Amino acid sequence: MNRFKALETQARGYQVALEEMLPHIKFNEQGLVPAIAQQHDSKEVLMMAWMNREALDETLRTGRVCYWSRSRRGLWRKGESSGQIQQLKSLVLDCDGDTILMQVDQTGPACHTGRRSCFFYEVEGEVISINSEVLIDPGELYK
Amino acid sequence: MNRFKALETQARGYQVALEEMLPHIKFNEQGLVPAIAQQHDSKEVLMMAWMNREALDETLRTGRVCYWSRSRRGLWRKGESSGQIQQLKSLVLDCDGDTILMQVDQTGPACHTGRRSCFFYEVEGEVISINSEVLIDPGELYK
Repeated sequence: MNRFKALETQARGYQVALEEMLPHIKFNEQGLVPAIAQQHDSKEVLMMAWMNREALDETLRTGRVCYWSRSRRGLWRKGESSGQIQQLKSLVLDCDGDTILMQVDQTGPACHTGRRSCFFYEVEGEVISINSEVLIDPGELYK
Repeated sequence: MNRFKALETQARGYQVALEEMLPHIKFNEQGLVPAIAQQHDSKEVLMMAWMNREALDETLRTGRVCYWSRSRRGLWRKGESSGQIQQLKSLVLDCDGDTILMQVDQTGPACHTGRRSCFFYEVEGEVISINSEVLIDPGELYK
């Protein structure tokens, strides 16, 4: 039985060693889990990206969020080129141990378009509207 | 070029027909996209699950959230067995057109464990702690 599922009936406050659970995180066939970043105070969902075991370890060790870039096939220390970093505030796994939710403190825009959040194509009836503005020109962010 | 990326430099308020964009959503090799559900008022992230094109269409058409269950290989009308449904408040796609964020109104617990949110295994230093309590016994939810 999945180790996370085996613990799900435990009460609030139940504790288990992190080291014991890490091998049971359900990385997919590419060795990745989705990781959602939420701004800790405003609660805005900023982005979703992917982590492999190494990115997760680095994130927990350094307190600075590190993803796995599927396009660049390498560790992606968020903000390494743009300066728009994510400080980790907390990290929570879901009931199945296959998705991560992080509370972060995001410097400036999380999105490569210069918008605060990557979620800006809003469905409104029969149209999609862009619902937020560019805070910093991407040309400035990645120059 | 990805159709979503092609529009990313447009200003806030820019509109495009939904029908035009739907075929450009980047479903993965299994035909799925991750969909995050956030409680619209408290902003708590409740869960992440998957949608295929059909589940997305149904969600938009009915205003009640429908996922694709990977384990049951079928449409999963959230709450169909537990009664804990999700009313859709808004649906937003991300910059790459490969992830969905929904604001929902969740009846009772979103999690099959009877907890409000599926994210309850919180990393705290060297341990993982269960950070929330069971609201309704799962035996009651799925009887």
